[in-house]
Amino acid sequence: MAAKFVSKRNLQFLLYEVFDVLSLTRYPYYQQHNKKSFDLILDACLKMAKKLLFPILEEMDRKPPELENGRVKVHPAVRTIMEQFGEGGWIAAKFEERFDGEQLPYMIGDCCQFVFAAANYSGVTFPGLTAKAARLITSFGNQAQIDTYVPPMLGGQWQGTMALTEPQAGSSLADITTTAVPLEGDTYQIRGQKIFISAGDHDGVDNVVHLMLAKIEGAPAGVRGISLFIVPQKRPDGQGGLVPNDIIVSQIYHKMGYKGSPITELSIGEKNDCRGYLVGEPHKGLAYMFQMMNSARLGVGAGAAAIATAAYYAALEYAQARPQGRPLTERDPAAPQVPIIAHADVRRMLLFQRSFVEGAHALLMQCCRYADEEIVLEGDAGERAALLLDLLTPVAKSYPSETSIPSTSLAIQCLGGYGYCDDFPVEQYFRDTRIHPIHEGTTGVQGMDLLGRKVRMQNGKAFDLFVEEVQGAIVEGEAIETVAPFAGTLKGILEELVEVTDTLKTRAVEEGIAVYLSDATLYLEYFSLVAVAWQWLRQITAAARGLQGKPSKSDLNFYNGKFFSGRYFFHYELPKTKGLVARLLDTDTVTLDMDPAFFQD
Amino acid sequence: MAAKFVSKRNLQFLLYEVFDVLSLTRYPYYQQHNKKSFDLILDACLKMAKKLLFPILEEMDRKPPELENGRVKVHPAVRTIMEQFGEGGWIAAKFEERFDGEQLPYMIGDCCQFVFAAANYSGVTFPGLTAKAARLITSFGNQAQIDTYVPPMLGGQWQGTMALTEPQAGSSLADITTTAVPLEGDTYQIRGQKIFISAGDHDGVDNVVHLMLAKIEGAPAGVRGISLFIVPQKRPDGQGGLVPNDIIVSQIYHKMGYKGSPITELSIGEKNDCRGYLVGEPHKGLAYMFQMMNSARLGVGAGAAAIATAAYYAALEYAQARPQGRPLTERDPAAPQVPIIAHADVRRMLLFQRSFVEGAHALLMQCCRYADEEIVLEGDAGERAALLLDLLTPVAKSYPSETSIPSTSLAIQCLGGYGYCDDFPVEQYFRDTRIHPIHEGTTGVQGMDLLGRKVRMQNGKAFDLFVEEVQGAIVEGEAIETVAPFAGTLKGILEELVEVTDTLKTRAVEEGIAVYLSDATLYLEYFSLVAVAWQWLRQITAAARGLQGKPSKSDLNFYNGKFFSGRYFFHYELPKTKGLVARLLDTDTVTLDMDPAFFQD
Repeated sequence: MAAKFVSKRNLQFLLYEVFDVLSLTRYPYYQQHNKKSFDLILDACLKMAKKLLFPILEEMDRKPPELENGRVKVHPAVRTIMEQFGEGGWIAAKFEERFDGEQLPYMIGDCCQFVFAAANYSGVTFPGLTAKAARLITSFGNQAQIDTYVPPMLGGQWQGTMALTEPQAGSSLADITTTAVPLEGDTYQIRGQKIFISAGDHDGVDNVVHLMLAKIEGAPAGVRGISLFIVPQKRPDGQGGLVPNDIIVSQIYHKMGYKGSPITELSIGEKNDCRGYLVGEPHKGLAYMFQMMNSARLGVGAGAAAIATAAYYAALEYAQARPQGRPLTERDPAAPQVPIIAHADVRRMLLFQRSFVEGAHALLMQCCRYADEEIVLEGDAGERAALLLDLLTPVAKSYPSETSIPSTSLAIQCLGGYGYCDDFPVEQYFRDTRIHPIHEGTTGVQGMDLLGRKVRMQNGKAFDLFVEEVQGAIVEGEAIETVAPFAGTLKGILEELVEVTDTLKTRAVEEGIAVYLSDATLYLEYFSLVAVAWQWLRQITAAARGLQGKPSKSDLNFYNGKFFSGRYFFHYELPKTKGLVARLLDTDTVTLDMDPAFFQD
Repeated sequence: MAAKFVSKRNLQFLLYEVFDVLSLTRYPYYQQHNKKSFDLILDACLKMAKKLLFPILEEMDRKPPELENGRVKVHPAVRTIMEQFGEGGWIAAKFEERFDGEQLPYMIGDCCQFVFAAANYSGVTFPGLTAKAARLITSFGNQAQIDTYVPPMLGGQWQGTMALTEPQAGSSLADITTTAVPLEGDTYQIRGQKIFISAGDHDGVDNVVHLMLAKIEGAPAGVRGISLFIVPQKRPDGQGGLVPNDIIVSQIYHKMGYKGSPITELSIGEKNDCRGYLVGEPHKGLAYMFQMMNSARLGVGAGAAAIATAAYYAALEYAQARPQGRPLTERDPAAPQVPIIAHADVRRMLLFQRSFVEGAHALLMQCCRYADEEIVLEGDAGERAALLLDLLTPVAKSYPSETSIPSTSLAIQCLGGYGYCDDFPVEQYFRDTRIHPIHEGTTGVQGMDLLGRKVRMQNGKAFDLFVEEVQGAIVEGEAIETVAPFAGTLKGILEELVEVTDTLKTRAVEEGIAVYLSDATLYLEYFSLVAVAWQWLRQITAAARGLQGKPSKSDLNFYNGKFFSGRYFFHYELPKTKGLVARLLDTDTVTLDMDPAFFQD
């Protein structure tokens, strides 16, 4: 295994030098924190990732969960993970103090999640999902529900899940058929089938709490008839105990990667003895669930970037150590071989990975910054942050997810034949990360969300705010001589994005929604490159400031590394917008015109 | 499993309508063949692929070879495959009649290989490698060597291998240290270690014949000191029997995919009792081996395109059958769901796959056409074909290898969550094909080969011939009204390729070889897109001719499908050249300038 899976220096850079997390401590909500407490938390997180999660990365892949006598058996470390994440306050980290939480900023909390995911993505999904499910209950549940479910979830004794998908309803949630029949109060009888439920059952916890979408009898058709329920695997018997709640694990899926986490198929209420508890009001379930989905989408993006980060460090370590070949100008075959990092093409592969993972991580941190601002800022400023977070969520979900595939693939490529073998973990990273463009809304769904909804909402307000944000970074960059050329490039790229977006919106009016959205996935890719270039401009700006100080030798290398990685992004990745723009402005509609019959033979 | 893994109609289209394989039968060398015999061979090949290879695709993945008591145990079907490929004449298919071969054109023989690889890539590597190794012996071996080794190899009793790589010598073959000490005549004592040897040992054959690179004692340093040897696992004892030849399988690699084929580490001559037999002259081994390597490179490209073809048909089948969601213009949530092939983004994913696999297959067929012309044409015409084949080999190896990753990835994406599970074979295709950018020369090596050697050889003659070939297709396309717009587009793209190439060559002179080759991998990607656009123009032209006839209903769909797939390539894939051109003309040299120390932290 590689020695390193994440860079502490980069975490500090993002937190303190780019996103100024300390500025949050000026607000009452975060005033109990300071640099010292943040550093302590980061250190504790790095230590736990290294000691508890990273060592079992490969083992959890080799011995995946199995369904035995109706119970899902997971790696024994899962119980330890849940216990330590519960006891250490990691599950409750971002929760308010009234829930015994740490009231930690998203920037810090999600940085820790990033570290955990880089160490062992499967391992950290158990507490991660639980926190998100508990958050949904504290946001929309009643006091009794909060009192019953939240403490054991945040304590790591109970697992939380997100139970949406059904055999006939994947991307199309409107089509769910799980039914809820009212009994009394908030109690309903639930019946149905759910598939692809992560951590839907396992023996690392004492109970599983499903946050489940179902339709109350007589509800309107489509998404307007969906309600949200707490459906525990074992339900409270009213006397302080728990009784089985008629949920059966009918199948466990065998996956290509991400194997440490059990994905289950659930049969619910086959004996008509499953109780669910309505959260909030009837028929508003999908709106509530979007809180968890949006959070999960950012988690997926972060997971993808984190996995690719670990793969990058494994590739870097190999490239520094492996001698092979000689410089092109060396004519003496008896000259010693050089480490492969000396070859331009290997550096290109490493720079691709680094510019991706650090660019993506910065974009995710930017989203956390907006989430924090949404909490501490009032009025327009808070709304502004919320809109920006909403706009960027599909980008922050999809760009890392999609790009983690070529990125981990290039990690394999750096290792050559060894990369394809399981002696090194890079092939596992490649398998693990392939889930990300699929779960929590496919890339196609995210593209429709961005172009169909987010770019147009409130008459384009979120998009305009985004343009303002990028312009702000450009102005900052222009003021520094070494950064100005990059700022200038981004200025042109941003203007082009505005023009292309306007052109597409005009086409929506003139040619209809089907034409407008036919290349939404490619628009998402295009928008992502611009968004990440913005993040690289911000990072280059911060690095230039670092270089203007009196950096230590290692900081000098770090800031220069940042600068070169940003330079790589601008000179190698950003040009890809040219092909995307050409495509997006091309009015040929072959994907709409293709008759399905033409696919025959 | 999917019902279909390859399109017979497409094979016929390429063979008869695009590449006119029948024209070869005018030459004496191929005169014994005709349409009827070709059709019979294709049918037999499709039948064997379907009955013998495809049914065990998943089983060979689930039960990979293991090293047991020094012997590699493979799936029992491997022996059947070798027997049936030997008895049926498939291993000898392209060999001359004097070796009991079928003297089959490359176009037909490699089409059959493509079908076999689409059915089960691991399964077909055993006979495929054997044929290539035998060809090396018939080309450069002496009569005694041919008599001893070729018949049992072509008969499927003995396995052939390609034994190049050593722990310290992967991409850098100059550094091999396996030694050969002369004994008498062509016999040498061999000692060394070889790694990553495909089919280096297995119990599906009676003997294994390694075509091995080694250095004769006192040979010059570097590639000029490499010789080629036949090193059998069991050597002839001179009395009609075989005795062990001191080769030990020290390890078997556990890979992410391509699991059916055992990749081995060999210890050779540890007891000083390994004999090797020099092929041809001393120190010319690498030149000889390039015959096998070039053939293997085309085989790798074909394997990648074939795997992606099978993945495409699996995705297509799913997309036609799976109902999910509704058209964007449908407002009634109670309206029935539509098959996902109705969604533009799913069609885009399918068209990406189809335009890739059929474009790549055409490029490979073009290479086969040149290989056949090299055999039948004399003088300049034969040399012209040889040069074009040489130029296109790195392209035909790498473009399918690299693009098969996103292509099989999109096959997974079409299946959503199911695509990530092993109930469907698409996840296996994704794992299987990842080997291709690595083995037989990485993509980085191919890029250097194309830009560093092939584009410049004979003062750019091969490149000029390529431009002529594309221009020929453009002229043909311009003559047909529906094709002319595509021909016009390619004309501009081709002119740009010539300009970019000239600019780079100028930089080579002015700034040196390191700058010139720093983006060779990206030049390879760029060149590939132009080459595949050329192949799509050829296919569209043939489809337009088909449409001008009186096509049957199914042919009408097929030709239209071709037309739309080509249109997709021109409107979605070809624009990617814009970003690549921008990068290749960009004079920023960040990958050369990046100090390895900047990667620290």
